[in-house]
Amino acid sequence: MIIEEGAYVLLYHSPQKTWLVEATTGKKFHTHLGVLDIGEAVGSTFGSHLLSSKGKKVILLKPLIYDFVMKSERLTQIVYPKDLAYIGIRSGLTNGSRVLEVGTGSGGLTTYIASIIRPTGHVYTFDVNPKFSAIAKKNIKKANLSEFVTFHDHTRFHEANYGEVDIVVVDIGDPWTMIEKTYESLRPSGTLVAICPTMNQLEKMSSTLTEFGFVFIDSTELMIRNIEAREGKTRPAMRMIGHTTYLIFGRKAL
Amino acid sequence: MIIEEGAYVLLYHSPQKTWLVEATTGKKFHTHLGVLDIGEAVGSTFGSHLLSSKGKKVILLKPLIYDFVMKSERLTQIVYPKDLAYIGIRSGLTNGSRVLEVGTGSGGLTTYIASIIRPTGHVYTFDVNPKFSAIAKKNIKKANLSEFVTFHDHTRFHEANYGEVDIVVVDIGDPWTMIEKTYESLRPSGTLVAICPTMNQLEKMSSTLTEFGFVFIDSTELMIRNIEAREGKTRPAMRMIGHTTYLIFGRKAL
Amino acid sequence: MIIEEGAYVLLYHSPQKTWLVEATTGKKFHTHLGVLDIGEAVGSTFGSHLLSSKGKKVILLKPLIYDFVMKSERLTQIVYPKDLAYIGIRSGLTNGSRVLEVGTGSGGLTTYIASIIRPTGHVYTFDVNPKFSAIAKKNIKKANLSEFVTFHDHTRFHEANYGEVDIVVVDIGDPWTMIEKTYESLRPSGTLVAICPTMNQLEKMSSTLTEFGFVFIDSTELMIRNIEAREGKTRPAMRMIGHTTYLIFGRKAL
Amino acid sequence: MIIEEGAYVLLYHSPQKTWLVEATTGKKFHTHLGVLDIGEAVGSTFGSHLLSSKGKKVILLKPLIYDFVMKSERLTQIVYPKDLAYIGIRSGLTNGSRVLEVGTGSGGLTTYIASIIRPTGHVYTFDVNPKFSAIAKKNIKKANLSEFVTFHDHTRFHEANYGEVDIVVVDIGDPWTMIEKTYESLRPSGTLVAICPTMNQLEKMSSTLTEFGFVFIDSTELMIRNIEAREGKTRPAMRMIGHTTYLIFGRKAL
Repeated sequence: MIIEEGAYVLLYHSPQKTWLVEATTGKKFHTHLGVLDIGEAVGSTFGSHLLSSKGKKVILLKPLIYDFVMKSERLTQIVYPKDLAYIGIRSGLTNGSRVLEVGTGSGGLTTYIASIIRPTGHVYTFDVNPKFSAIAKKNIKKANLSEFVTFHDHTRFHEANYGEVDIVVVDIGDPWTMIEKTYESLRPSGTLVAICPTMNQLEKMSSTLTEFGFVFIDSTELMIRNIEAREGKTRPAMRMIGHTTYLIFGRKAL
Repeated sequence: MIIEEGAYVLLYHSPQKTWLVEATTGKKFHTHLGVLDIGEAVGSTFGSHLLSSKGKKVILLKPLIYDFVMKSERLTQIVYPKDLAYIGIRSGLTNGSRVLEVGTGSGGLTTYIASIIRPTGHVYTFDVNPKFSAIAKKNIKKANLSEFVTFHDHTRFHEANYGEVDIVVVDIGDPWTMIEKTYESLRPSGTLVAICPTMNQLEKMSSTLTEFGFVFIDSTELMIRNIEAREGKTRPAMRMIGHTTYLIFGRKAL
Repeated sequence: MIIEEGAYVLLYHSPQKTWLVEATTGKKFHTHLGVLDIGEAVGSTFGSHLLSSKGKKVILLKPLIYDFVMKSERLTQIVYPKDLAYIGIRSGLTNGSRVLEVGTGSGGLTTYIASIIRPTGHVYTFDVNPKFSAIAKKNIKKANLSEFVTFHDHTRFHEANYGEVDIVVVDIGDPWTMIEKTYESLRPSGTLVAICPTMNQLEKMSSTLTEFGFVFIDSTELMIRNIEAREGKTRPAMRMIGHTTYLIFGRKAL
Repeated sequence: MIIEEGAYVLLYHSPQKTWLVEATTGKKFHTHLGVLDIGEAVGSTFGSHLLSSKGKKVILLKPLIYDFVMKSERLTQIVYPKDLAYIGIRSGLTNGSRVLEVGTGSGGLTTYIASIIRPTGHVYTFDVNPKFSAIAKKNIKKANLSEFVTFHDHTRFHEANYGEVDIVVVDIGDPWTMIEKTYESLRPSGTLVAICPTMNQLEKMSSTLTEFGFVFIDSTELMIRNIEAREGKTRPAMRMIGHTTYLIFGRKAL
């Protein structure tokens, strides 16, 4: 648990004040809490702390995939952890899974999937926008998961030879257009998941999955609420995210 | 994707009518849809179907970990998929994780954890009630994950030699009593998670984590709602589970 | 607070076991708690109790409008109290309001509105189905509010002479069809409310209100969750109603 | 529906841009939309509009009690409309109700109650802080409801002679301390309501109501979510208030 040169570290001061940085000798990091000498982190242990120039304590945490996703560079709306996690469990994502992702976006979902399917599984991902793919590659590299992900050119979707997959995840504005194109690649009994921010997308996707003979079609939404658990005055947080996306799942029947 | 003798199969007729069965030659399965000749499934493909004696179609799906958990034998309240999945992502559960679980219960959470940490990680689990451990072992065996799980005797908790772990998960009525007992085993920067069905447990657990110097303490609740997505009349389902449990997370700081 | 002959009484044994009955001399009421001599209630005080033939205690409560609505006879889905109340406050329902209701249904909303607008306001209500109107009349009479409600024949909607109203409430399957028909009757700056169980209705209603120049258009949903508040083990109830209806409000601009 | 000199008007530009002003001849109102000549509103009709100096349209709406509450001057956290309305329906608040309110705060709840119980009911209200009472009086006067409200000095609670009431509403930090003090004043079968922002208050209040023999004890929370209903892209709003308060209700049994 020694922090090596070049390792990513999550600097933690409070739940609202965290930063993901690379630990490099000589590096200074400026925050409103004062300057941090990141170089001091190199060679110390995860769980220990630095003091800023203003004497503020900052804990050195080993970043989780959760942290890499929450701190990822973004050109698109990210898929939130509550949704990432549920996509995983409801689709059967597990060690060894082979996954086709349509709509890489900023790569948060790709990162999460790669972290679960390694070391024997693989993610094949496409995006119509090369800027998104470039950001996604950076984010996935940070999380040290590049070897489990293959990027393809969206314009040459049909030429890509990724073989049969266990799970298809679609995160684009018109997900129903991709059912036909991915149907053959999905192994029988495998799961197709789509991320549908609007009710209209969900409705159309549900109808299209039914037309294609998918079964166990399940449309859901997840809400998460923080609780302020403090002795004698515990209550839910006043602020909450009201909506991220709906999720729809179906299993391929022959 | 051929169904082998002895494989588990999820029989699907509708979202409300599914059964998890072992495919065995000669086996008959009686349902209100008529009798199913399960033996016919052996040698056929996942995704294909059987017809019942009443002519009803039943799809043969390859069970996911989700299905094994939802169909597990239970002597205790299970941890629901929405919570399992969020425990996983928020704690950093990933391939290779070493996890200590206190409170095996019926083994649903153990099953989920094992499915993610394999092939190189491991789960060490304890329960005070040997009846629960026996059920949990059966459930984990069904999901073919036994090799990734070690059961320990709760009464000899201190003698167990599981070494340092990345994650501690506590699912017992008084989780705060286990912080001291598991503290040394949790690697610095690792995550402790507790499953707290009541506000009172959550409040006490939050205070105790703070006393022990844990940081990034995060108390949450997740709600899941099904959506009935049907052309021209889409709306949320009338029935919903109002509460399963609160979850609390903390990271160990030195 | 003396219970008079013919008064309605809410018999309360537990939150799940309540009955709305008319207090009549000589009346016996059979429940699984034993037989109750309702005649004994006549002349006693609200808040006091009866003992059943099995010695079970049943409290005699004065029914609220809430109780009349929850215990109303129904041929249709009722509007739930959380929605009734919010319709009231968001539309400006108050003493003296004149209200036009399209879609009487079983009369629960009519009852609530009448209870607020009395003694100087009035409700004008229509339903296409005479069976609904008949049930609604019975329910409103039970709550002793008949004098504040005028029933009209839906087929003669245009002939009804109810004058200008402060609020229009629409509770029918295609509420957008009634905007034009009720527009002239709604006073400038008045509120139109529609009860839209589905997203599709809500979306179409929102567009139509916009077309008609309504402002301050507000689409919402309310969720209510019971809390089991018990010393040392407080938590939300496991069961919850996931959805009743969406509500949409708009103010008429000239 | 002519706007008279001195009448309150809700200026509406968009759901996020509304102002509650008094219509006075010669008054200018400065906003980022430009200057509004409020004097022009006097003599015009509710529902019509003004143009700002920058040519922006501002609709003149007749303010509802909802608007008076949302725009009230505040020294305290207000009770939100969803909670006001549910307090009303669940407690049996109606025309003619006599209500005792402990904890006037900024008077939003007092305003709402007064608007429902008029013309024959009355509200008796107390607050320990004379600054709150002063603000509350101003807010209630704006809504033209002063004649239905009597303010009492909290330090002389026992001397106040308000007689028997139908409903007691308690909105203070330690509501359980007021059960004994208000018990005699509440008519048998009447409702006691308490506003409890924390789980701990709710739990203690529930136990105390039980000790005092209250029945039909009901603890709830309400959540409200806006829906962005737009053609082809309808979805819930991303932002939501996660928590305002819990509510607890009980009926007095003898």
